[in-house]
Amino acid sequence: MSNIDIISDKELKKGIKQFLETAPDIYMAGVSVDTVIFGFHNDKLKALLLRFGNTPYFILPGGYIMKEESLDDAALRILQERTALENIYLEQFYTSGSISRSKEEVAIELTQKMIGTIPHSNWFAQRFVSVCYYALVDDTKVNPVTEAFFTEVKWFDISRLPKVLYDHDAIINKALKRLQSDLDEKLAGSNLIGETFTMGQLQKLYEAVYQKEFVRTNFQRKILSLGVLERLEKQYNGKSHKAPYLYRFIK
Amino acid sequence: MSNIDIISDKELKKGIKQFLETAPDIYMAGVSVDTVIFGFHNDKLKALLLRFGNTPYFILPGGYIMKEESLDDAALRILQERTALENIYLEQFYTSGSISRSKEEVAIELTQKMIGTIPHSNWFAQRFVSVCYYALVDDTKVNPVTEAFFTEVKWFDISRLPKVLYDHDAIINKALKRLQSDLDEKLAGSNLIGETFTMGQLQKLYEAVYQKEFVRTNFQRKILSLGVLERLEKQYNGKSHKAPYLYRFIK
Repeated sequence: MSNIDIISDKELKKGIKQFLETAPDIYMAGVSVDTVIFGFHNDKLKALLLRFGNTPYFILPGGYIMKEESLDDAALRILQERTALENIYLEQFYTSGSISRSKEEVAIELTQKMIGTIPHSNWFAQRFVSVCYYALVDDTKVNPVTEAFFTEVKWFDISRLPKVLYDHDAIINKALKRLQSDLDEKLAGSNLIGETFTMGQLQKLYEAVYQKEFVRTNFQRKILSLGVLERLEKQYNGKSHKAPYLYRFIK
Repeated sequence: MSNIDIISDKELKKGIKQFLETAPDIYMAGVSVDTVIFGFHNDKLKALLLRFGNTPYFILPGGYIMKEESLDDAALRILQERTALENIYLEQFYTSGSISRSKEEVAIELTQKMIGTIPHSNWFAQRFVSVCYYALVDDTKVNPVTEAFFTEVKWFDISRLPKVLYDHDAIINKALKRLQSDLDEKLAGSNLIGETFTMGQLQKLYEAVYQKEFVRTNFQRKILSLGVLERLEKQYNGKSHKAPYLYRFIK
C-alpha cells in the first residue's frame, strides 16, 4: 500500500530550487488545489497523503493552477501526476481561505531547512487560497508517484492520520462530511467497491465512511429504498445455498 | 424594491481610475468573491443584481479579497457594503475557475468605453478564480448601496433575469440548485420567511425555490416530518375559526 522512495537531500534541494525559479511564470499566484483522495480497503476508509520532503509531516496531494488551465483541469492533472490514474471522478467541495492557513511556520521553516536559504520572493510563503476536491478511487489501481518535494506516498486510515501541515486536517474533515452527505448519491459512480458485492460488504463501506456501526436490517431497508441496486440470481453451482446474495448497481 | 441612482459619467470614470490605481496594493490578485443574495417577496424568489456602470448589463454583488482578510470575512464585508445588512448567513457553495469566465470581452470593452483608455496593466482583464457564496436575506431590510461601478441595485425574479456578464448566470443556477438541496436544513435559520407563517405561505416559498408546484397534502406531510415546525394555538378572538394555523420554527 505504500511506496517509499527517499530522495537524496541534494536532489531534493535541486528540485525545490528549480521549482521556485520557474513557478511564478507558469502558475497563478495565490490559488492552489488540494485533493482528498479516498479509497476503501480492508473495511477501512483511507486517504492518500504525501510526506513533505524528508520530514515527519504529511500533506494532501495538491498543486498549482497553470495560467491557462481551468481549476477542474488543474485538479485532474494533479491527481494524475500523483496517482497515475485517469478519468477519475473529482468533486469540488470547498475553498479554504483563512489567513492563518498560509502562514504555517512549520512549512516555511521546513522549506528553509531543506534548501538552506529562502529566495527573496518565496513562492511557498505567499498567501494561498486553496480550492479543494475529493476523489473516490479504487486503491488497488493507484500507482503513487513521488517527486522532489514528496518522498513518500501513503494510504492512511482516516481515523489514524499522521501529523499534517497547514489546515489539511480540517480539509480532510470537511471532505469526509461531504462524502457522508453525498454517499447515497455518489455510491454507484464511485470506485470504492467492486462491481458485485454482498449487502454485508456494502454495509462495511457505509460504516467506514460514517465511522459508526449500523443495524443490519435497518441498513438493508434504507439502501434498498434508494433504488440503485440490482440483486443478482444466485449461482447454484453445488456449493452452499446459504451464500449471501450479490448485488450490483443498476446501469 | 429598486434603488436607481445614476452616477454621472465623470464621477464613474474617476471612481474606476482610482480603483485601478490602488487595487493591486490592497487586494489579492487572481481571486474574487461573488455572492448570490436570495430574497423572497410576493411569492417569488429574487436575486439582487448590480447594473454594471451605465450599461444594460448586470452582475452579481462581488468584490476582491484584501491581502490580510479571510475569504469568509471578505464575503461578509462585500455583502455589507452592498446591502447595509449585518450578521447575514453566508454559505460558500462553489468556486468558479474556467479559463473563459475571465475573458469576457464585453466586460473588458465596457470598462474601456467607460474610462476611455485601459491602463497598461488592467486589473479587470487578469484571470480571476471566483469563490461563490449565497445568502438568504429578508429583502425588506436590504438597503442597497450603489457606488462608482454599479449605478443600480435591483431585485430580479430568478425566472426573469436580465442580461448578466461573465459566467454569473451559471453561478446563479448553481446557487439555486444548492439552495434547493439545502432548503430543508437551512430553512429555520434563513430570513426568507417571517417569524410566524401559514402552511400555505411556506408552500409558496418552497414552490418559488424549486420553481414548481407541490400537492398541498404531500407538502404538508413532508414538511411536518422534518420536525422543525411548531404549530401555534389559534387565537380565538371572535373572528373566523377557519383561519389557518400559524407555525413557527422550534427554537
